[in-house]
Amino acid sequence: MSWISVSAARDASAVGREVEVRGWVRTRRDSKAGFSFLELNDGSCLGNLQVVADASLANYADEIQKLTAGCSVVVRGDLVASPAAGQATEMRAGSLRLIGSCDAETYPLQKKRHTFEKLREWAHLRGRTNTFGAVMRVRSRICDSIHRYFQQQGFCYLHTPIITASDCEGAGELFRVTTLNLDQLTGSGRPVDHSQDFFGKPAYLTVSGQLEGETYASALSRIYTFGPTFRAENSNTSRHLAEFWMVEPEVAFFDLDDNRQLAESFLKRVLTDLLETCREDMEFFDRHIQAGLIERLTAVVQRPFEHMTYTEAIRVLEGAGEHFEYPVAWGTDLQAEHERYLTEKHVGGPLVLTDYPASIKPFYMRLSDDGQTVAGMDVLVPGVGEIIGGSQREERLEPLLARMAAAGLSESDYEWYLDLRRFGSVPHAGFGLGLERMVQYATGMANIRDVVPFPRYPGYAEF
Amino acid sequence: MSWISVSAARDASAVGREVEVRGWVRTRRDSKAGFSFLELNDGSCLGNLQVVADASLANYADEIQKLTAGCSVVVRGDLVASPAAGQATEMRAGSLRLIGSCDAETYPLQKKRHTFEKLREWAHLRGRTNTFGAVMRVRSRICDSIHRYFQQQGFCYLHTPIITASDCEGAGELFRVTTLNLDQLTGSGRPVDHSQDFFGKPAYLTVSGQLEGETYASALSRIYTFGPTFRAENSNTSRHLAEFWMVEPEVAFFDLDDNRQLAESFLKRVLTDLLETCREDMEFFDRHIQAGLIERLTAVVQRPFEHMTYTEAIRVLEGAGEHFEYPVAWGTDLQAEHERYLTEKHVGGPLVLTDYPASIKPFYMRLSDDGQTVAGMDVLVPGVGEIIGGSQREERLEPLLARMAAAGLSESDYEWYLDLRRFGSVPHAGFGLGLERMVQYATGMANIRDVVPFPRYPGYAEF
Repeated sequence: MSWISVSAARDASAVGREVEVRGWVRTRRDSKAGFSFLELNDGSCLGNLQVVADASLANYADEIQKLTAGCSVVVRGDLVASPAAGQATEMRAGSLRLIGSCDAETYPLQKKRHTFEKLREWAHLRGRTNTFGAVMRVRSRICDSIHRYFQQQGFCYLHTPIITASDCEGAGELFRVTTLNLDQLTGSGRPVDHSQDFFGKPAYLTVSGQLEGETYASALSRIYTFGPTFRAENSNTSRHLAEFWMVEPEVAFFDLDDNRQLAESFLKRVLTDLLETCREDMEFFDRHIQAGLIERLTAVVQRPFEHMTYTEAIRVLEGAGEHFEYPVAWGTDLQAEHERYLTEKHVGGPLVLTDYPASIKPFYMRLSDDGQTVAGMDVLVPGVGEIIGGSQREERLEPLLARMAAAGLSESDYEWYLDLRRFGSVPHAGFGLGLERMVQYATGMANIRDVVPFPRYPGYAEF
Repeated sequence: MSWISVSAARDASAVGREVEVRGWVRTRRDSKAGFSFLELNDGSCLGNLQVVADASLANYADEIQKLTAGCSVVVRGDLVASPAAGQATEMRAGSLRLIGSCDAETYPLQKKRHTFEKLREWAHLRGRTNTFGAVMRVRSRICDSIHRYFQQQGFCYLHTPIITASDCEGAGELFRVTTLNLDQLTGSGRPVDHSQDFFGKPAYLTVSGQLEGETYASALSRIYTFGPTFRAENSNTSRHLAEFWMVEPEVAFFDLDDNRQLAESFLKRVLTDLLETCREDMEFFDRHIQAGLIERLTAVVQRPFEHMTYTEAIRVLEGAGEHFEYPVAWGTDLQAEHERYLTEKHVGGPLVLTDYPASIKPFYMRLSDDGQTVAGMDVLVPGVGEIIGGSQREERLEPLLARMAAAGLSESDYEWYLDLRRFGSVPHAGFGLGLERMVQYATGMANIRDVVPFPRYPGYAEF
């Protein structure tokens, strides 16, 4: 007999089976009537399996009555219908074997509630708590939905490079990747000899796979990337990570409107899957992290997304009668407070903004016929702000060269990118979704450091 | 009317429909009878859609008769049953619109056959060739199977950190990640001040997510990672990349035998999916890249994997009567020539080797009762060699500490890892599969640089 998961053992259909389960003890409670209740969890689901172990078991006094939170055990027994509310089954233990003990004095995860900040210090153990177990299961399910969605729509999953020698978009805030010996460098007194580095020149961690993604969209029509991206910004906030995962679809023959519809359909699919398949975890977040979460996400799935142009948004903000810290005027970038007003107060749900001023957007966005705006779009959601940023790309060589010149970018660095506009160029569009922002939005977790197994931010790269 | 993919247009069920397709011209051939045949491809599949355009089209002489390879077009027309062999449908064009021209003089992808080495210089365009389109579709399908397999088996997809401050396994060949200004460093004459770096100490690119994966397996029971890993080895071979993707499942309560069975079941599932869902691409590889490929992979799926211990393998090699460059003796690591002999000549299929000498394996592998060997395993396959490496992990604190001391590793660097053995420790096991080696094995491609969109190796980080 092999073992089954706690999730399977808790299912009503398992009543009547004799099974083995393996996991960690969450709590033990002894009854005066000569038996003990154990709550057993193996991370396969939020809920525990209640195990009833009675004094007739050989190791009852020696081991079972000494079990503490965190001990690992193997239990065999019969699954019976549970008389208690909120659970379908419970187990009558026929045997219980202690695998790994756990000293209650030194085990960091005590019965009391720990702050999320404290739990970050124990990131190697926090997955054993209800909240972080649920976060990681939901994160995994979101990733699965992302892959399902794109694969079913005929997209090819593409791995764009993590290490890159091109400073995409001139973004600036990059991590350098090197095999040079820094301690030897300081003593040299000579300029850095880049030819001695691993790649023969300076190399960096990618901030986006978009440009490389465009090359394969110009061959395979529909591609998506899903990998880590990096920002070396000194941002110590609850919304920024130095290392995060991003999904970037790119589609040939797509215009901005196609792109907007793709983003909406994609977000709805992910949320629908989550509400259907992660019910227990989502109810946990609704109850303990953000009240009304499920109702709010359900409404998002059911209603069409609102959308407006940047110019319309400026008009709304100017007429809002709100005091904003940053003044509102056409041509300035929207600040978090403006985005929050629009999505949280004005719309009360997701909002797609399009047609931003060219002056505040990167060179690769397609210039519109008005000569002032570009075919860019952002999807804003309440609580999180910008969750998706995308655009139709400039597929015409001459306008692209003009934008690059205006941005001070060197043509020779982008010859390969320009080739796409020389050889069978096509209209195309795409967007990027930050996975961690999506998990925040879906769970209501306040700090982005708590939706990733091991967060990286300024001064912090533990584990 | 929206457009459909070339893949959909080529399906027999589409006969009789009036549709639009969008893609790139592969070839044009004019008939003396007053019409042209165009081969149209959009990357959705290997095969092209044959489009028949006749002289009655308004732009026939001006545009259609000037189309060259690489031009992008939008074509509307009726799909009819094709009289030609090897294709179910063809299109009678009702209209054809040129989207992006492609100068035949300067377009790198000429009609002639280019070497794979030459195509690497045009990595931004090589996805448009038959071979690289097929490689990328197969790679995507393999990734999809990997996620399907683990998600369906109840595994949680976990993102372990890419940037890490711990030198996992003391592997040594690491890329340094830094925001220090190297040019300023050289002039300073002072030792490197690590506190000024982004993370406040030296940080590196990960070589494996295993140790971090173990932390969450000790909470969620079944996890898998699937992300990029890095080796700064100066290996200029057809089998090594500086950046590659790795899948690493880790399972609580698993022993070596469970682990071996998981690896076999996993590999078979991926190959089965591929043979079933990528038939056209796989036939291409069978025909043009490696004769007999499909038959060989089909046999792999149908037969149980052979397995033997390292000690048995040494005995086989000693009795082989072969001349090996490296001598064979118990206690030495197996070289590629030995692995090739075992899997290609002795077994003729996948071979799982287990129970290696402790002295040649990392500290975290579980010491066996003999005190000499560890519960490690490698899966070897013909043509590629080692495709999977894994082990049961040492879950007992004392033997683990002893192995670490012997390896010269500092206990304080691994406190968090040791905690897993202090608090509810469990037997557990896992393995790593190199995605690129898997794609090589599945396609028969000889050089690993040709199974990844943009390869990274010493001296090379282009695009």
